[in-house]
Amino acid sequence: MATTYFSKRNLQFLLHEVFKAEELTKYDYFSAHDRDTFNLVLDSATYIADTLMHPYLKEVDKNQPELKNGQVTVHPKIKEYLKAMGDAGLIGAGFSFDHGGQQLPEMISSCVGFILMAANNGMMYTGLTSGAAHLITSFGTPELSEAFVPNMLAGTWQGTMALTEPQAGSSLSDVTTSATPQPDGTYKIKGQKVFISAGDHDAAENIIHLMLARIDGAPKGTKGISLFVVPKYRKDEQGESTAPADRPGNFVDNDVVSTGVYHKMGQKGVPAMHLTMGSNDNTVGYIVGQPHQGLPYMFQMMNEARIGVGMTAAAIATAAYYAALQYAKERPQSRRLNEKNHLYAPQTSIINHPDVRRMLLFQKSVTEGSLSLLIEAARLYDISEVAEGEEKENAFLLLDILMPVAKSYPSEMGVQSVSQSVQTFGGYGYTEDFPVEQLYRDIRITPIYEGTTGIQAQDLLGRKMTMKGGKAPQLLFSEMSKTIAEASTHDDLKPYADKLAAELKRTQDVVMSLMPHAQKGDIERYLSDATLFLELFSIVVIAWQWLKQATVAKQILITQNPQGDDLAFYEGKIHTMKFYFHYEVPKTLGLAVRLKDPEVLTIVSEKELAL
Amino acid sequence: MATTYFSKRNLQFLLHEVFKAEELTKYDYFSAHDRDTFNLVLDSATYIADTLMHPYLKEVDKNQPELKNGQVTVHPKIKEYLKAMGDAGLIGAGFSFDHGGQQLPEMISSCVGFILMAANNGMMYTGLTSGAAHLITSFGTPELSEAFVPNMLAGTWQGTMALTEPQAGSSLSDVTTSATPQPDGTYKIKGQKVFISAGDHDAAENIIHLMLARIDGAPKGTKGISLFVVPKYRKDEQGESTAPADRPGNFVDNDVVSTGVYHKMGQKGVPAMHLTMGSNDNTVGYIVGQPHQGLPYMFQMMNEARIGVGMTAAAIATAAYYAALQYAKERPQSRRLNEKNHLYAPQTSIINHPDVRRMLLFQKSVTEGSLSLLIEAARLYDISEVAEGEEKENAFLLLDILMPVAKSYPSEMGVQSVSQSVQTFGGYGYTEDFPVEQLYRDIRITPIYEGTTGIQAQDLLGRKMTMKGGKAPQLLFSEMSKTIAEASTHDDLKPYADKLAAELKRTQDVVMSLMPHAQKGDIERYLSDATLFLELFSIVVIAWQWLKQATVAKQILITQNPQGDDLAFYEGKIHTMKFYFHYEVPKTLGLAVRLKDPEVLTIVSEKELAL
Repeated sequence: MATTYFSKRNLQFLLHEVFKAEELTKYDYFSAHDRDTFNLVLDSATYIADTLMHPYLKEVDKNQPELKNGQVTVHPKIKEYLKAMGDAGLIGAGFSFDHGGQQLPEMISSCVGFILMAANNGMMYTGLTSGAAHLITSFGTPELSEAFVPNMLAGTWQGTMALTEPQAGSSLSDVTTSATPQPDGTYKIKGQKVFISAGDHDAAENIIHLMLARIDGAPKGTKGISLFVVPKYRKDEQGESTAPADRPGNFVDNDVVSTGVYHKMGQKGVPAMHLTMGSNDNTVGYIVGQPHQGLPYMFQMMNEARIGVGMTAAAIATAAYYAALQYAKERPQSRRLNEKNHLYAPQTSIINHPDVRRMLLFQKSVTEGSLSLLIEAARLYDISEVAEGEEKENAFLLLDILMPVAKSYPSEMGVQSVSQSVQTFGGYGYTEDFPVEQLYRDIRITPIYEGTTGIQAQDLLGRKMTMKGGKAPQLLFSEMSKTIAEASTHDDLKPYADKLAAELKRTQDVVMSLMPHAQKGDIERYLSDATLFLELFSIVVIAWQWLKQATVAKQILITQNPQGDDLAFYEGKIHTMKFYFHYEVPKTLGLAVRLKDPEVLTIVSEKELAL
Repeated sequence: MATTYFSKRNLQFLLHEVFKAEELTKYDYFSAHDRDTFNLVLDSATYIADTLMHPYLKEVDKNQPELKNGQVTVHPKIKEYLKAMGDAGLIGAGFSFDHGGQQLPEMISSCVGFILMAANNGMMYTGLTSGAAHLITSFGTPELSEAFVPNMLAGTWQGTMALTEPQAGSSLSDVTTSATPQPDGTYKIKGQKVFISAGDHDAAENIIHLMLARIDGAPKGTKGISLFVVPKYRKDEQGESTAPADRPGNFVDNDVVSTGVYHKMGQKGVPAMHLTMGSNDNTVGYIVGQPHQGLPYMFQMMNEARIGVGMTAAAIATAAYYAALQYAKERPQSRRLNEKNHLYAPQTSIINHPDVRRMLLFQKSVTEGSLSLLIEAARLYDISEVAEGEEKENAFLLLDILMPVAKSYPSEMGVQSVSQSVQTFGGYGYTEDFPVEQLYRDIRITPIYEGTTGIQAQDLLGRKMTMKGGKAPQLLFSEMSKTIAEASTHDDLKPYADKLAAELKRTQDVVMSLMPHAQKGDIERYLSDATLFLELFSIVVIAWQWLKQATVAKQILITQNPQGDDLAFYEGKIHTMKFYFHYEVPKTLGLAVRLKDPEVLTIVSEKELAL
């Protein structure tokens, strides 16, 4: 491919040099793998990304899905892509051998997602299928898995997450879609779902919705929600097949009607559907697991889903960064500010202007910092799945406290990073002549997907910081201390290790100043600036990731004496770490002042504000 | 109109209560006006905005201009709009009576622009015409004005600014379009221009380009650039008329070819053209003023143009804020965090969630802070035009130092503000069902237009802070001190006055720490973080504007004892001032640390960074 949209070099550095992916193969579950099989999977994803995705970035954006006569048509390349992904075993990469998967760690399969989304995030189909199928294999009966999962992992059936309803966006406890038990053990489903990504399209032979609904008479609130498989076409050996001719087997229409397709600002390649179930009283749902356990099931998959969103955001920002970097190297404009001979000197490449270099280093620090954290999170996910005892529990707690950051930092800062990519291009960045305007539109959904930033912030401060007596932050701070100790052994890294230690202290001070509100039960006050706390906490977490990367780079520089591009790569890591500490970390000063400030300005008092 | 896209109440507050627009009528030039004539003009703009612009916001975005057979077609409403604007005298609002204008202050005519751009910024045509015509009336001969200006102010001819070339974006000294003198005093023009907004379209009978070009043999660099009027059709009594039949008079084609139209992320209603002049050696240009004075002329109009961009950004962000505000009031979702009865309590409007309220207050503080500064800048512009002696000079210096902020703060923070408008809507904000996704795309160009943020930052730190021995910042700081003194007379405002004084001190410290680099002639180092200095400086300037607004509101609360909506309005002003000081101002802490930090990370050293 002519254009670079991610760095293979950086991915190898993070996976193998920083996070030592191969160490996971010491666990039985992953023992069939080694570094080579990991890399083969990444190569296979890269091939698909290069040939079937990246060349169609603009085309997929330009030809958004349309709903006509009840059928959604999508770009023809998507069918080809789904098939290739199924054939390569990449939809099932993370599934067990038993379920027809490759039993690969999340560390690897989430990096597959990173590569695909960097190539063309408008083709965001297979991650949804994996997530949906994973719910079935995790909580459904073997029969349910057998009926749905093989076709899903083959890429012939599409999976979706059907959670959101018109009156219940972030508030899933208010879901009202109903499920009425039938004598045969199935349920009749009735209701509406909105924003269902890939919720209907003609590139798959069937659409399998993993849907939240409330069984008749179920308790109110979060404890009365169940999870169902609701297909677009259901198998019915008795009935007359009404599904299109290309569906093998006897399938009938399951009364899931595409009521509308949302037209969106970005990610135009994937349809966001408005669906209506049961308008003819003929939508059958198959329960997954136990009644009323829908939300707990969903939340058990949430970490995986949120790693996916974080990866998507990091991938989009990475693609934009490489586009901006290439442009900055090639585009001549003006002279160096210290150039004495402005009249006759030729123009210099804009990468030589400090302000452009600052914008590029910002993008590099955000995108590579994000990817590092996401791979760390995926590693913890894997350990929490396959380890045992304290190791398992600690990994789970660490993952839990990092998740709000791993989902929201790549999204929020990714939006800003792509904005700086646009700015690097100047006026050209605003035109369709370059990919950054599209990436700027695409990435804007990520701070909304899978729990908005505000929800992540409440999750972090309201739950993760305090659960189990604050064990999660304790574990995290002790992990950070290990990195600090290691970095401190290098003279030139020590000042940064000291800085991180000081930031840790600052974060703890902020938490202490907020705690009394929680203890008094004034949750509204406690959480009123939770989003700013998440921002502060994220800056510190990413600083930790950068110090970790720089320490590994430093060790390699000392022990391996790399030359040429390799030398530049490792030195670039240390330089970007410094950039992050000098430019991004100082933002914690203002955030801490605000968070410790007793003045409350965002809570409604008796007298309504004139907003 | 059903939807609110700006606040008439706030505009009246700023124009009349804070900045006392009527005081301008004491100057001879504005003496024909009073508060009523000012308001009449605003009402007339509002009527056009309500009837001809706002209803077509989406339609204009959806039907972007297309270039077919050498002709650009735009939405049919645009012709109607241009005619209405001409008939209402609004294109010439700021022009002298002599030139067929209304001789209104920039304070009023820039607010006309604010109203129009809040309604539909995709119809950004008339501001370009005003700017182009103003160049002709300011520097051209009476004959040149007579030939072009009346049709421009009538809205039948379109004006443009034709500066940018493919190889010269921000660097105008590298313009290469050539101008060859002809015996009759005209010039033959040859070259290319890019990104020419409204550079060709079928809603105007003629397009009048104000174009920078280099006369054959002119000195290199900025001192060899001249300004020309280059029409699409030129009057030619001898020749055979080749212009379309609807052009009255004998007009021939002037060999200005529309080579391409850029497709953009936003502001889709107005075509950005690639133009080629002289491909048949038949493009005639008429010089404006003296040879080689093109850049100085352009720079004399720059403040006006930059106020226009700032107003556009503030207007877009304002429209998005009102959309988000309305949604937040109407959308029920979840319960208050302190609600004990989560199961049975009805959902609350999202405006009652502190995080949503924080997002809304952020938007209000950015948009109303921006508008306040822009009206202040327009007032200084007017005084600099009509006053004399020291008053004139001081107004000019103050305007000069405020301009980089007045252009870039509304743009940069407006982008963030509209992003928070999108976030307030959640998933719906990402869809075309609401206007915010479009406004998010539209506003992204404003940090690029008329000098990118990086250019503004260099202008501020590299020129405005130091020119005339630093007189401009001295004047500004003394203006701020006046506001501080006035605010300090109110007990509840005094803490904020003290904060602003401390921020002023912090800003001065930062400047002192940077100055040695300038004195050593190391301009690259001096300006390496100029953008961050602009950010710091802007936060302080907007804090000053908020303190000013709050002080006026406080005085009115004391002296006029307002009730009901009025009471809420003035209290809302004081509350938003507090919000700004508690949430936005602390950002200066981190910025100051970075700016005083001796570590340089963005200047290329001998050994190239691995970027």
